[in-house]
Amino acid sequence: MPTINVQVFEGRTLEQKRAFVKAVTEATVQTLGATPESVDIIIHELKKEDWATAGRLWSDRT
Amino acid sequence: MPTINVQVFEGRTLEQKRAFVKAVTEATVQTLGATPESVDIIIHELKKEDWATAGRLWSDRT
Amino acid sequence: MPTINVQVFEGRTLEQKRAFVKAVTEATVQTLGATPESVDIIIHELKKEDWATAGRLWSDRT
Amino acid sequence: MPTINVQVFEGRTLEQKRAFVKAVTEATVQTLGATPESVDIIIHELKKEDWATAGRLWSDRT
Amino acid sequence: MPTINVQVFEGRTLEQKRAFVKAVTEATVQTLGATPESVDIIIHELKKEDWATAGRLWSDRT
Amino acid sequence: MPTINVQVFEGRTLEQKRAFVKAVTEATVQTLGATPESVDIIIHELKKEDWATAGRLWSDRT
Repeated sequence: MPTINVQVFEGRTLEQKRAFVKAVTEATVQTLGATPESVDIIIHELKKEDWATAGRLWSDRT
Repeated sequence: MPTINVQVFEGRTLEQKRAFVKAVTEATVQTLGATPESVDIIIHELKKEDWATAGRLWSDRT
Repeated sequence: MPTINVQVFEGRTLEQKRAFVKAVTEATVQTLGATPESVDIIIHELKKEDWATAGRLWSDRT
Repeated sequence: MPTINVQVFEGRTLEQKRAFVKAVTEATVQTLGATPESVDIIIHELKKEDWATAGRLWSDRT
Repeated sequence: MPTINVQVFEGRTLEQKRAFVKAVTEATVQTLGATPESVDIIIHELKKEDWATAGRLWSDRT
Repeated sequence: MPTINVQVFEGRTLEQKRAFVKAVTEATVQTLGATPESVDIIIHELKKEDWATAGRLWSDRT
């Protein structure tokens, strides 16, 4: 606790994930007063055909 | 907002997803008074071996 | 299955929830080929101070 | 209802999943007073590069 | 990891929650080979007006 | 997209939430290459009696 679940389009590199979890953990520790060890971050990569806004799949946008 | 997460067994076609997000967005706009642009829908396809009801995996049902 | 989780700002009336789950269930049955009995919908109402876009809480927008 | 979502590292065997959903369903029935048929369990397997604790991806731990 | 999120109707006693998390943690440790310390369980209590099956809110069932 | 759901113990002040969503949005923009407008953050505050680690509720720890 805190546990942070992130939903993002697929295609992030390992280096991006590494930088993201480091930066978000630091932001969480500084603003919420948590210890680093208590911060879990789980990344969920999604295909564009599995996400829609305004009734249209992102895979259908050009 | 609203953000709608849908868990469903895998095997839906792209056409089914397209029709689903269109229809659910319209239903949301009409009943909750949201704008279409504010409606996000995220689809999560699951394998039958990852879903159980009454203590039995769906992949074990014939 | 399908299980549908909806996140929305608080303040929906019981009548809106009733209409919403009816319409979304029908949309799901028609587009994904599920039976009505298999469709679960769970509504999560959120306070504006618990949702942010672009780094600003919705309770801070006027 | 109850609906139980489990996030776990990938690599579980089918036999482990089968034993897990059986045992957790029994535990739920006995302690919460639910019927077996009302218990749904959904398993989400995650890669080590998609989970971080203390700002470090589990794929970076040796 | 594992992290287990449970959605259940409101009205569980503290004693029921205590028994539930103990039993589910034991079931998880025995079947998935996790350590007890690695098992997190998060309980979400829901009102009957926020859960629907087959297009009807549970608060509308008598 | 990205959509970030955060689970944390209750008791955060409005000022902490405000600082948290600002810092996490900046961290996301810088590391994942998203625009600020595309970042949604949803905060879920939980009671200590609804979170367990190692089979014990946090409300039972002194």
